[in-house]
Amino acid sequence: MVEMQPEKSGTATARPSMVWDAWGVPAGHQPLSAQIRGLLAQVFGISGEPVARRDEGDVPLRPTALTAADRAGLTAIVGDEHLTTADVDRLRHAGGKSTPDLLRRREDGPQDAPDAIVFPADHAQVLALLAYCAEHGVAVVPFGGGTSVVGGLDPVRGRFGTVIALDLRRLDTLTDVDPVSGTATLGAGLTGPQAEELLGAHGLSLGHFPQSFEFATIGGFAATRSSGQASAGYGRFDDMVERLRIATPQGAVDLGRAPASAAGPDLRELFVGSEGTLGIITAVTVRVHPVPETVAYQAWSFPDFATGAAALRALVQTGAAPTVLRLSDEAETGLNLARSADVGGEPISGCLAITTYEGTEAHVAARALEASGLLAAAGGTALGEAPAQQWEHGRFAAPYLRDALLDVGVLCETLETATTWANLANLKVKVTGALTDALGAQGTPALVMCHISHTYPTGASLYFTVVAKQLDDPIAQWRVAKSAAGDAIVAAGGTITHHHAVGADHRPWMSAEIGDLGVRVLRAVKRELDPAGILNPGKLVP
Amino acid sequence: MVEMQPEKSGTATARPSMVWDAWGVPAGHQPLSAQIRGLLAQVFGISGEPVARRDEGDVPLRPTALTAADRAGLTAIVGDEHLTTADVDRLRHAGGKSTPDLLRRREDGPQDAPDAIVFPADHAQVLALLAYCAEHGVAVVPFGGGTSVVGGLDPVRGRFGTVIALDLRRLDTLTDVDPVSGTATLGAGLTGPQAEELLGAHGLSLGHFPQSFEFATIGGFAATRSSGQASAGYGRFDDMVERLRIATPQGAVDLGRAPASAAGPDLRELFVGSEGTLGIITAVTVRVHPVPETVAYQAWSFPDFATGAAALRALVQTGAAPTVLRLSDEAETGLNLARSADVGGEPISGCLAITTYEGTEAHVAARALEASGLLAAAGGTALGEAPAQQWEHGRFAAPYLRDALLDVGVLCETLETATTWANLANLKVKVTGALTDALGAQGTPALVMCHISHTYPTGASLYFTVVAKQLDDPIAQWRVAKSAAGDAIVAAGGTITHHHAVGADHRPWMSAEIGDLGVRVLRAVKRELDPAGILNPGKLVP
Repeated sequence: MVEMQPEKSGTATARPSMVWDAWGVPAGHQPLSAQIRGLLAQVFGISGEPVARRDEGDVPLRPTALTAADRAGLTAIVGDEHLTTADVDRLRHAGGKSTPDLLRRREDGPQDAPDAIVFPADHAQVLALLAYCAEHGVAVVPFGGGTSVVGGLDPVRGRFGTVIALDLRRLDTLTDVDPVSGTATLGAGLTGPQAEELLGAHGLSLGHFPQSFEFATIGGFAATRSSGQASAGYGRFDDMVERLRIATPQGAVDLGRAPASAAGPDLRELFVGSEGTLGIITAVTVRVHPVPETVAYQAWSFPDFATGAAALRALVQTGAAPTVLRLSDEAETGLNLARSADVGGEPISGCLAITTYEGTEAHVAARALEASGLLAAAGGTALGEAPAQQWEHGRFAAPYLRDALLDVGVLCETLETATTWANLANLKVKVTGALTDALGAQGTPALVMCHISHTYPTGASLYFTVVAKQLDDPIAQWRVAKSAAGDAIVAAGGTITHHHAVGADHRPWMSAEIGDLGVRVLRAVKRELDPAGILNPGKLVP
Repeated sequence: MVEMQPEKSGTATARPSMVWDAWGVPAGHQPLSAQIRGLLAQVFGISGEPVARRDEGDVPLRPTALTAADRAGLTAIVGDEHLTTADVDRLRHAGGKSTPDLLRRREDGPQDAPDAIVFPADHAQVLALLAYCAEHGVAVVPFGGGTSVVGGLDPVRGRFGTVIALDLRRLDTLTDVDPVSGTATLGAGLTGPQAEELLGAHGLSLGHFPQSFEFATIGGFAATRSSGQASAGYGRFDDMVERLRIATPQGAVDLGRAPASAAGPDLRELFVGSEGTLGIITAVTVRVHPVPETVAYQAWSFPDFATGAAALRALVQTGAAPTVLRLSDEAETGLNLARSADVGGEPISGCLAITTYEGTEAHVAARALEASGLLAAAGGTALGEAPAQQWEHGRFAAPYLRDALLDVGVLCETLETATTWANLANLKVKVTGALTDALGAQGTPALVMCHISHTYPTGASLYFTVVAKQLDDPIAQWRVAKSAAGDAIVAAGGTITHHHAVGADHRPWMSAEIGDLGVRVLRAVKRELDPAGILNPGKLVP
């Protein structure tokens, strides 16, 4: 381990705040292309101009409930300048970025928001804040990048009068870089780009690239079991977690003494995915790897989804998986949704698969040769590098496209699940059917597209994108479809979420997921660590 | 999933019971070779004939404390013929197979044992037994293959007057074979060979080959986080667990709905490694793979342990790991301990590494080519197939050798840990030093040998074998050494156990491993699932 001073990210990746009522930063928002507008007119009869959105200064907000006593108690820990009750700050911490979240912010009425935002400097301050809040009855919503799409950041007060957002952005250091073992300790508040910048200075990379990469944080990745687009090569984020530092109202927990252990239950797996309900992850020691010597790209076309899925399965089960491995179904391929710059343009036929290979020159060459042989033998047609590079180029852009669609009256949302290979086709049919039926029954026929985003030897994830014309109450309209999809997932044997987490939105299905006794176990752990119940009320634990 | 009747293993692998006072079955026991006897005379001055061991019929046993009421209550669930209080059965369930266990059985005094052995037929009977025992205050030790080397099977009564062993051998079915997804559901009581036989009939294999393979069970593998010799290729047993069925005094838990999920904490990881203290695992759905088309073998020699370890690290971090990957240090290589038929014979120079590659012809060829290139570049000299095949041939034999050594007055025991690559040399020195110092100070200089048995991108395990002359009280002699080694492991940043589990023997170090708050979490879960505290008292949870 290199003895080192904590390193902070530089101005190159100075941390941007997302706009309050949409994804990302203003520069990312683009008007819809002529191709997409043509498509919307043709399919949904929508041809309107985008509605104007409110300036954040004009938004009526429920007044802060923070008492003077609590303000004094909290600022005694973090300092006056690290607590804010300003409306603009509260708005930007008012919740996540699901389609219902964004639709709610486009409504005229007053918005709810945390009563204050507190910015602790370090682990010790988080511990002190939690002790204070437990003693004085203040609910706490941990806040990383604000990218939740499952209501994980809703400012729920529970039985308390006050809720604060605990923004972890100041926990932004890199420490304990160990290039020999390939580990590094990252502060929970570092965003994806900040973490990659700090690691890159050591010739290292984390390789975790979920769609939320540009804004989401290390702590959030761990707390929600995030999975990145290179998961076939580098694993899910939970696979990358070597050690965790957690602050709870009852004190600190440090877990993970070795790459693997038989010393009882793996308690890291209790906090990974705990979504701020059992404690707040303040630092994560992650597995890292050298910045790849080379990256190879190869796109493939398969005649249909079943053939493509069988090809991906053969690859993973043989042990020849690329770094990125994904397969769009016919509908998604037909709309070019996997290549965001060309949505609605001239489509690739069949089903598009993307592969990339990262590593040493020799490893990439050997792996690409073996995998390409398997994919060709399984019915794939090589399309060359370009479509794979186009996919990579636009891979963080889809949420911006969703904003533009919402602005012209189109409902657009995603949901995801996972199951075994044998059950994959069945689950896809059932979820697609539930979504099209639920929206069709409301008079809004839906386009439902799907891709396999993450693969495992025993199964894969399914990521659905749903597009339909908005009704007058699009939140209620979507709620019906989401509910039908969740029920269909459970009935067809899938998991209610593969990488979006539970939050408030998937909580109704948690009993189906882990059983009543599993829920009792979660509640028992929460009682032990958070007896006052201040931690992220209304999330995860039914 | 194939609709199928439960399949049971045939007579080919009819399940053997281990002898009461040593490892394995009588046929496995061999007299020491002339080579080894010569070595013992030379190094330790030991030249005696083996002591005669007691016939199990001659062993005085504490009388059973099972009351007539409890006998009636338990047999009402399982039937009269599935409960026994016969001394021979009780002796064979008296504990595990650590060196202290075996030394204790070689003492003259009376032996302790469970008051009865109960053989449930299925999950429902296990549930009913646990409910009965919780209501009537009977402690329960779950019993699989009886191979624990950490006191995990000690018949501890806790605050109860009676303890039963719950032998799971009748839970021996294969169900739900899914060759597409590569999963199968195995009864907890199936031994390694039984499971492989049942899977083999479907062209499938589990690929889990710990040294205890011939006797240990599926439930035990899961409950103790077992790790097999092919872990570089197929992963640890915890990696193979897709779904779990668990019986607790509060009811059943079924966990695992998908190959991966973000639906909160992974509660499977709470029961995997729980060692019968939170519930009894009755069935495990595991990841399986096709019986390999081919297996390639290649042994290597490295000039020293540090060079060999760096070579293994390069392999794993590049993503080019073989199926089996292990490295003996100079001492172990010098004694040929990795090739049991030739211990003490003409040694291989330097440090011996074993690699095997399993899978399709193309995959094995590609992988062996890449890996061999890396090993040669890292300073390895290829030794051909023979030493690797010799290792495989004798890989389950070491515990029999230990018995023969114990019988002639030699103390022989193993212990293991894991840490990061950067800390590996330090940990090896510290543990070796603690063992040699603790035994040397007692006037019995020790031979301490070590190998890397399991590798990960961020680190590896260290497996130590210790040999010394026995003192008059060899149990006390070893206790001093074991305690020093455990303290050294913790002080040097290792985990107290990489794959032997915690049981009674590693419990003193659990607070160091997971912290006081981690211990409180375990206790909270146990209180919820086992409020009476009947499950495996005195194990795992401090």
